[in-house]
Amino acid sequence: MTPWPAAQPGDTIDRIDTPALILDLDIFERNLQRLANAVKGRDVRLRPHAKSHKCPEIALRQIALGAAGICCQKVSEAAPFIDAGITDILITNQVVGTQKIDRLMHLASTAKIGVLVDHVRQVDDMAAAAMSVGVALDIYIEVDVGAGRSGVPPGRDAVALAALIASRPPLRFAGLHCYQGSAQHMRSPQDRQQAIARAAAMAQATKDEIESAGMKVEIITGAGTGTLVHERDSGVYNELQPGSYIFMDRDYADNQRGDGDVAFEHALFVKTTVMSRPAPGRAVVDAGLKASSVDSGMPVVWGRNDVRYLKASDEHGVLATDDAMTPALGDQLMLVPGHCDPTVNLYDHLVCVRRGIVEALWPIAARGAVL
Amino acid sequence: MTPWPAAQPGDTIDRIDTPALILDLDIFERNLQRLANAVKGRDVRLRPHAKSHKCPEIALRQIALGAAGICCQKVSEAAPFIDAGITDILITNQVVGTQKIDRLMHLASTAKIGVLVDHVRQVDDMAAAAMSVGVALDIYIEVDVGAGRSGVPPGRDAVALAALIASRPPLRFAGLHCYQGSAQHMRSPQDRQQAIARAAAMAQATKDEIESAGMKVEIITGAGTGTLVHERDSGVYNELQPGSYIFMDRDYADNQRGDGDVAFEHALFVKTTVMSRPAPGRAVVDAGLKASSVDSGMPVVWGRNDVRYLKASDEHGVLATDDAMTPALGDQLMLVPGHCDPTVNLYDHLVCVRRGIVEALWPIAARGAVL
Repeated sequence: MTPWPAAQPGDTIDRIDTPALILDLDIFERNLQRLANAVKGRDVRLRPHAKSHKCPEIALRQIALGAAGICCQKVSEAAPFIDAGITDILITNQVVGTQKIDRLMHLASTAKIGVLVDHVRQVDDMAAAAMSVGVALDIYIEVDVGAGRSGVPPGRDAVALAALIASRPPLRFAGLHCYQGSAQHMRSPQDRQQAIARAAAMAQATKDEIESAGMKVEIITGAGTGTLVHERDSGVYNELQPGSYIFMDRDYADNQRGDGDVAFEHALFVKTTVMSRPAPGRAVVDAGLKASSVDSGMPVVWGRNDVRYLKASDEHGVLATDDAMTPALGDQLMLVPGHCDPTVNLYDHLVCVRRGIVEALWPIAARGAVL
Repeated sequence: MTPWPAAQPGDTIDRIDTPALILDLDIFERNLQRLANAVKGRDVRLRPHAKSHKCPEIALRQIALGAAGICCQKVSEAAPFIDAGITDILITNQVVGTQKIDRLMHLASTAKIGVLVDHVRQVDDMAAAAMSVGVALDIYIEVDVGAGRSGVPPGRDAVALAALIASRPPLRFAGLHCYQGSAQHMRSPQDRQQAIARAAAMAQATKDEIESAGMKVEIITGAGTGTLVHERDSGVYNELQPGSYIFMDRDYADNQRGDGDVAFEHALFVKTTVMSRPAPGRAVVDAGLKASSVDSGMPVVWGRNDVRYLKASDEHGVLATDDAMTPALGDQLMLVPGHCDPTVNLYDHLVCVRRGIVEALWPIAARGAVL
């Protein structure tokens, strides 16, 4: 609930108050197009992850470029996208708890909704709720293909769960969710490729077992910005869920790029101002950890090899500078956040800039939607 | 912009959807009272830091218990408190940039506003703006008393700056801001005491130099939850700025308590639900790093020594469990956040609970106010 916006359309970039979350529209549009090109003519569809942007304006552009729908990570996150006219959403998470399931059923009465399960009880609860409300629901089995977080192991547990889903008519068994999250930030391209080769083999084996039991596995969905070319080329996955590719962040930039990887560029920045220059070699900016999330490490100062962002407190960022004079008090800098998703979640608006002029403010309508 | 609230007044605690930010009102009120008692009859006043709570309902209760005013960390953060009737706010930061100074002057025309400086140019800019708008402004010199962040060194730089401020009539030289932030989380009580003894000596010496030059240093302000008894007892500080004491967090609880320290209790929790139980020894909850900030380390699971919160991704928290069966799928747990300030900044409301019943939802009105 920022009491005033950082800028207005028409402002020049130097007039944007700081800290502000800046989206460079030319770069963003190139990233959008690069992903669309990367799957053109292939038997793989896109369902970009909206947890990265939480912004209906962006989701609508992803759909316009051919995405089948979007992913959300939470039930409440999906609501503003449905309000904006998105009609096909996969919630890439287990949904547990009476309140949350009631909300999910309400959404499923207005849009095509998919959800993950990895336990019998989730299927029972979902089936009972769907039956009582009279809605259909796509159910995906989450398979742990190497991330070690949620999901059933590959193989027979998934077969049993698929059979249970198929026996509950308000539910439709839609496929397997096989996201290998821990592969996304492996620095070496070979490591990422091998991790996805293993994940794809587990996904294929699980699909084969389920289909041998007489059920169709229509969709195998997964992939993130770090690995998507490998899932695309696997012959196993037929739906990709990258989120960060539109923005890119420092953590993704730290991956070594492999030969076939798509060359996404940084489009998201936190504009900041030097507010104190207390000692030679030290500058303090007005963007701290409430302006740029530090869970995946510090931001970097864009285009400035002479300046390093050392540490963050709530509203201060301490920079080490090679030069005693620059950057000077009042200078404006651009930071590339360490992790884009939680950084976007700190702001009410993306300040969209094209060639130095603010073109629009896009509401981050699902900011804070954790339920 | 959560599309719906986690609870309604009158709900029992088990009905609160998750993740949700819970304030235990009985404990919160005890913490409020403990701080008021800690300064009773002493020549030290309270100006609690509102960056921790961003919530006018809480600021009004702090004022009602005797606080002289509040601190804010940003100009935009102050606005909703002024709207709620708070009339005395110290912005504990440098304010740099035309847009931000314009906003500051607007606030100063409706409330008593103080602000920090550590550079001549900030004084010049502030004086010019205050003159042109016709408002008075309290100016505090930030002195670096050991934190190594912003601030002038103790001694003669502060004297020169005080003289400059005193020569600019719309500005009023109010005192010294001597916050030793890096002492707050020193684990040993002796280390904290010694750090504040050094800070107080630097503050006193700087005051003496300025007063020798014929200017009055009315206020020496600083202190946080980790050290406030030492500033209180220093004979140097006459205003204390603790913020986290109302909530307490895991990072503060990790401090060893010294003999004279005030026994604040955890009043802030993130309620979460086990949404996946994928393997023996592993549970996954629905509160990840968008529900509990991890900049100061992982949260802890309240009252459960058999469960450890290992790692967080956006909307998942992975727990290691001693037992293969408990906590079970669907179980509700309470987390104590690693760092309260940025955790509060993720939510739109505090769900205020008393003896198991939701009593109120308090808007976190300054959430996201980074400008």
